[in-house]
Amino acid sequence: MRSRLYLDWNASAPLRVEARDAMIAAMDLVGNASSIHAEGRAVRGLVEKARGQIASALGADGADIVFTSSATESAALALAGRDLACAGVEHDAVKSWCRPVLVTDETGRIDVTDPAHSTAQLANSETGIVQDLPAGLAVSDLTQAFGKMPFAFNWLGCDIGLVSAHKLGGPKGIGVLALKRGLDVTAQIRGGGQEMGRRAGTENVIGIAGFAAAAEAAMRDLANGVWDEVAEIRNTCEQALEAECPGIILVAKDRPRLPNTISLIAPGWKGETQVMAMDLQGFAVSAGSACSSGKVSSSGVLRAMGFDATAAGNALRVSMGPGIDRDDALRFAAAYAKAWKRAGERMKQAGADLPK
Amino acid sequence: MRSRLYLDWNASAPLRVEARDAMIAAMDLVGNASSIHAEGRAVRGLVEKARGQIASALGADGADIVFTSSATESAALALAGRDLACAGVEHDAVKSWCRPVLVTDETGRIDVTDPAHSTAQLANSETGIVQDLPAGLAVSDLTQAFGKMPFAFNWLGCDIGLVSAHKLGGPKGIGVLALKRGLDVTAQIRGGGQEMGRRAGTENVIGIAGFAAAAEAAMRDLANGVWDEVAEIRNTCEQALEAECPGIILVAKDRPRLPNTISLIAPGWKGETQVMAMDLQGFAVSAGSACSSGKVSSSGVLRAMGFDATAAGNALRVSMGPGIDRDDALRFAAAYAKAWKRAGERMKQAGADLPK
Repeated sequence: MRSRLYLDWNASAPLRVEARDAMIAAMDLVGNASSIHAEGRAVRGLVEKARGQIASALGADGADIVFTSSATESAALALAGRDLACAGVEHDAVKSWCRPVLVTDETGRIDVTDPAHSTAQLANSETGIVQDLPAGLAVSDLTQAFGKMPFAFNWLGCDIGLVSAHKLGGPKGIGVLALKRGLDVTAQIRGGGQEMGRRAGTENVIGIAGFAAAAEAAMRDLANGVWDEVAEIRNTCEQALEAECPGIILVAKDRPRLPNTISLIAPGWKGETQVMAMDLQGFAVSAGSACSSGKVSSSGVLRAMGFDATAAGNALRVSMGPGIDRDDALRFAAAYAKAWKRAGERMKQAGADLPK
Repeated sequence: MRSRLYLDWNASAPLRVEARDAMIAAMDLVGNASSIHAEGRAVRGLVEKARGQIASALGADGADIVFTSSATESAALALAGRDLACAGVEHDAVKSWCRPVLVTDETGRIDVTDPAHSTAQLANSETGIVQDLPAGLAVSDLTQAFGKMPFAFNWLGCDIGLVSAHKLGGPKGIGVLALKRGLDVTAQIRGGGQEMGRRAGTENVIGIAGFAAAAEAAMRDLANGVWDEVAEIRNTCEQALEAECPGIILVAKDRPRLPNTISLIAPGWKGETQVMAMDLQGFAVSAGSACSSGKVSSSGVLRAMGFDATAAGNALRVSMGPGIDRDDALRFAAAYAKAWKRAGERMKQAGADLPK
């Protein structure tokens, strides 16, 4: 039996070996980082070293790094009660707290009219589209961009950045809020003095160790051009899909976007059905962001870009990472094309609209 | 050199080998629990199995188990905006959200006048004192009790219980809120549909796996009488301390309390100085709860019980766990008595009040 191919890195990347090793090492540290004895100080040392490593990887030296349990929690901490403006292409974790009034054009570009009272993502999780962020932006969701493209928080010009570990090969359940020095946020989780009073609770030390190690490794990969190779393989895959599946739409193909993401629309073929068909063939792909994929709804991202609900309901996301080679990508494209043809034949027999 | 002895289990217990193994196994699970492909379903399976294991360990079958990042986060989720009454002996994570109007008597007993609008802990982190909880209590902090004494959430009669993993040998950074079936809480972290909409964010899968394994092992230990042995060793240690340190006060010695906790007051000797002296001798102990021990303040718990600020500032907490034997306990008592005598001599030379 052929081994499975995981093509859902934007939902969650595989744990990097560096993160794994750092986490196992951190398991031996007994104690609470708030304790003043030697055991407590050793844990504190690990947490503060990790904070510096993540600041450095984010290009956020001098900014405050607040550990949270996820980018979603970072979003709540940055956004709750502020009533900022956002676009429809933002993640639900952002949209929950904001007015979705910003316009996204058909190319995926967000029109930010009042940066100081707005939030905008750096890269989109479904399409990979990268925004040119305006200076003075209040908050930016950097989750999908972090580790996949070079940027420095300190040069983005935004006040607050949100990231999580598991999108770049760290563990799930640990995130960070980066805060321009001199600014503050209102703690939502209170009681201990942790994180300078901004976020109480005993620190997720093992997760923090894994995040820092993954962030360092991710920066090394970026510097070594690893993601340029991923982009080439992604492009090869897209070319094969275009050649073998006439009628499919490759979203944002010519836009500045993440090197690993394919967003496609297969007219007449439901995204969830596509996901299940490919799953049975051994390929893990997604019909949208993971958080929304549990629900039976079409992609809000594509609808915000002007696609209708039917087209958005026929969307598939394929997201790759280092270690996936050209043969893997072509194997996926061939399997997808075969399933696409079979789906077309079934629809024809059923008298349904043919895929166009 | 003699190896160090960790006697600060109430701040954070060492990671259990069962938790370690479960976490390392969970590291191999690629994918997001919200994804519908095989990888996602495998992660979802682990999370839901863990939820059942923790419900069972808590005696909360049928109740809803909501994963959070800590008992502190569980407290915020259960308490924010509800203005419940609490006592001064509660943890800061609880006190942050409540009116500290409930009276604690000199034995540590909390007088809950209106259970439906109150929160009360099951066991205190500093003194180990166990409360007899009234029926119909709104919220109870079960963090210190969970794993150290038998109880069943379903029989406590409270609506919501708060626990964390690292107090019973799971990893730091993962907690649970147990919710009587039919009740609900207002999500503070929003955006994904995780945890039935009560707490968004990609699940801390590795932490959840560790928590479940630790909870199961903790219940097995409890059933096997492991903590009865801990209580005997604790009592032996207390007897040695009483015999060798005339003048020290053993708080709550005759009260129903956790089997592992010693709370003592050494008149004239600052708690923090005690901690540092013992740390240098190779013993990790605490001057209060870990969260408050970073701050230079006397124990709020002891003050709420009627001790004055000076006495509360001279407090030490020694908290043990399985694996600490009689020799260890006596070694600690001897080292403490020696340091206590030395401190008394120094105070005498300086013309300060003698320890009484």
